[in-house]
Amino acid sequence: MSPELDSFTISEKEGLYKAVFSRRDIRSHFVDKKIPDETLAKILNAAHHAPSVGYSQPWDFILIKNKDTKLKVKNSFIQEREKSISLLDNNLERQDKYVKLKLEGILESDINICVTYDPERFGPFVLGRTSIPETGEYSVCCAIQNLWLAARAEGIGVGWVSILAIDDLRYSRNTQTC
Amino acid sequence: MSPELDSFTISEKEGLYKAVFSRRDIRSHFVDKKIPDETLAKILNAAHHAPSVGYSQPWDFILIKNKDTKLKVKNSFIQEREKSISLLDNNLERQDKYVKLKLEGILESDINICVTYDPERFGPFVLGRTSIPETGEYSVCCAIQNLWLAARAEGIGVGWVSILAIDDLRYSRNTQTC
Repeated sequence: MSPELDSFTISEKEGLYKAVFSRRDIRSHFVDKKIPDETLAKILNAAHHAPSVGYSQPWDFILIKNKDTKLKVKNSFIQEREKSISLLDNNLERQDKYVKLKLEGILESDINICVTYDPERFGPFVLGRTSIPETGEYSVCCAIQNLWLAARAEGIGVGWVSILAIDDLRYSRNTQTC
Repeated sequence: MSPELDSFTISEKEGLYKAVFSRRDIRSHFVDKKIPDETLAKILNAAHHAPSVGYSQPWDFILIKNKDTKLKVKNSFIQEREKSISLLDNNLERQDKYVKLKLEGILESDINICVTYDPERFGPFVLGRTSIPETGEYSVCCAIQNLWLAARAEGIGVGWVSILAIDDLRYSRNTQTC
């Protein structure tokens, strides 16, 4: 431990561990309430303080508040879910269980966040990324985890929806309806 | 916010944000001291509480304490660093800067942790991983970020060394010298 690093009090440690242990993947229980801008800023600020390979900070957080854009995201989810179900076509019981799961809260949540990775930012040579290029994406994941923990501390539910087609999200961005 | 979720006190929030904002990528300042087992257990427990796609928890944390194994990891670093330097061969100033950077603390740190990803765990069908298969690796990154924050709170320095060849790490594992 470096001597110039502040040590943590017991309650500070408890705060961190409480966020880590009580964080959940939220898909329901969203309430019809706006996230205050200052709370959102705190959560995004935590994300931006994540480690990144070569300090490249290769992420963007696109806030989607527009209902039409959310609907497009939801449609992508529905299509991708169908594909997933078809992978279970030999097992009706598993299919049935899968269909009943609540796997997203795209329309119910106040804000969707589309998290992007830009491999060209500060590139092409990014310090530490030459041997394992995927470390660029890994940095973005650390930022998402920071965001998730901060949101938990602020009482905001977060769910990571991965049953989506990347190409559909690209389209949504290009149409600039976010 | 779900009503059953406990809210955070101000000092609990401060603890989380302190970890987020004061976390650093440590490559020097390691001291000649063992990490107590109970501290290590806390840090690893935080990692294991990360979110994972389909609750697959596809990670392993291999603790490397053996000096010979650390030396092999260090050799992989040296070789990969040479490759990186060669990518800068048109720019002597950048090469010179690169060589002077302290990019790892493999031998100085008490423990190296080799973090793995097992795509076959609980597979082949993993809930939520069918559309974006990389979400398996993304889960591992969330675990690493949890580990990093917990280590910061416990006063343990962590550095993520990515200038390594994955194949070299595989070899180290197979020889069971960890």
